[in-house]
Order: sequence, then structure tokens, then C-alpha cells
Amino acid sequence: MRPWNQTVGPRLRVVIAPNVAVGPGKADLLQGVVETGSIAAAGRRLGMSYKRAWGLVEAMKDDFGAPLVTTSRGGSARGGAELTELGRTVLGLYRRMEDQAAAATEAELAELQRLLDRTLPDRDQGGPGATKPG
Amino acid sequence: MRPWNQTVGPRLRVVIAPNVAVGPGKADLLQGVVETGSIAAAGRRLGMSYKRAWGLVEAMKDDFGAPLVTTSRGGSARGGAELTELGRTVLGLYRRMEDQAAAATEAELAELQRLLDRTLPDRDQGGPGATKPG
Repeated sequence: MRPWNQTVGPRLRVVIAPNVAVGPGKADLLQGVVETGSIAAAGRRLGMSYKRAWGLVEAMKDDFGAPLVTTSRGGSARGGAELTELGRTVLGLYRRMEDQAAAATEAELAELQRLLDRTLPDRDQGGPGATKPG
Repeated sequence: MRPWNQTVGPRLRVVIAPNVAVGPGKADLLQGVVETGSIAAAGRRLGMSYKRAWGLVEAMKDDFGAPLVTTSRGGSARGGAELTELGRTVLGLYRRMEDQAAAATEAELAELQRLLDRTLPDRDQGGPGATKPG
């Protein structure tokens, strides 16, 4: 499940340097670590395997050249996990960008929604169906 | 090749309704149709197979309940293609959202770049390496 395909609004993927990007998946994983204190639990909430969650944490460390998440029990990622200062800063900046992008694009989003209502007045807003790639 | 992983800046994926989204792939495909007059050529510029490009055009028609692209030669998608009024409107709104989101998040992007420079001063900005998911 990718919850960010369901909630109406803009999703931001920030390319900070070529091949270094932060998007909803990494941001939600970082936020999950804050809220659950565990990489595994944070991943589970997003429907990610433990392997994938851990892989994203490692990828962020490689990308930024320093860890965004630390684990307290001698490196075992199943132990308690929390964000480093770098992790908190990156998450905070990303969330601020999300908020500001949403505010800056509100009028156009409303127009796109009106277009959809006009072409598909009977649209089942809660319907299933896979999201096609962006 | 997904060129939007290389260029620094925010990428926008706009979820207009649950499971209806427009992102860089669809927008660049629509723009390619404007510039090349052909779905196949537009797809090629993005490294998409013809099948995939056509699939995205069909998906957008399903999503919006009306075509965003028309083909002039009796439905053959390899013939001349152009955007419908709906297609032009959707592309225009998406591009405006992109511009406005970029302007609204400039300061935070610069901060993220400074963080990267600090942790990875010798970073090879042009290096290869696959982008990890968002």
C-alpha cells in the first residue's frame, strides 16, 4: 500500500543533487521512526518489508554521507531507533517544502478537480483500481 | 532513463482524486506530443516503449473520462497526434503547479543542498549510481 496515492494533493519528490532525492516514502519512513522508535515498525506501517525499510535508511546514509537514523542497541536495527540531528533537519525541511508547495498550488489543484468532476460527474471517489505511474 | 531524477529541484506528483494522479512522466509525455506531433516520438524522447507511451495516454483518458490526446489518422496512434483542449488545460495547470511549487520551496532546497555539501564535500555531482525510490 502506498498511502500517498490515495490522499488528494501534491506529492513532492525533491532532487537535491543528481541521483539524490527525498520523497514521500523516505519522509514517511523517517516520521515513522520518530513515532514508533523502530525501523521495522516504521516500515510495517507503510507496508514495507523490513529489508526494504532498512535499505532506504542505508540509502539515505549513503546519499547524505552521514546517518539520518541511529539504532541504540549496538547496531541492531531491530532495537530502538531514532533520528539523528541530520535526520530531523532533513525531515523538517521536507515537510516544510510539502506544506509550502501545497499552499502554492491550491488554486490549480481545485481547477483540476473541477475538470474531473465535469468529465466524470458520477465518479466513484472511493473506487479501487491501480494508480498509473505519474 | 528518467530525466527527472537528474535535474535538481522538486518534482510534483499531483493526486487529483484517489488513484488519479499526474506527475512528471505524464506531463513530459503530453509535452512531447505537443513538440513532436506523435505519441511514439514523444515516448521515445523519454526512453519509453511505444506500448508504455500509448498505455499512459489511455490511462489518462480513463482517469479524466475524456481524451487528452487525439490522433488524426483514423485512430492510428502512429499518425499525427495532438493535445485536446482538455490535454492542453491539464498540462498547463500541471506546469504552473510545478513552477509555483519550485518558487515556494527554493529556500529549503538550498538548505538541503548546503547539508549535502557539508556531509559530502567531495561529492561527484555528475556521478552515476541509481536513484533510490523517493
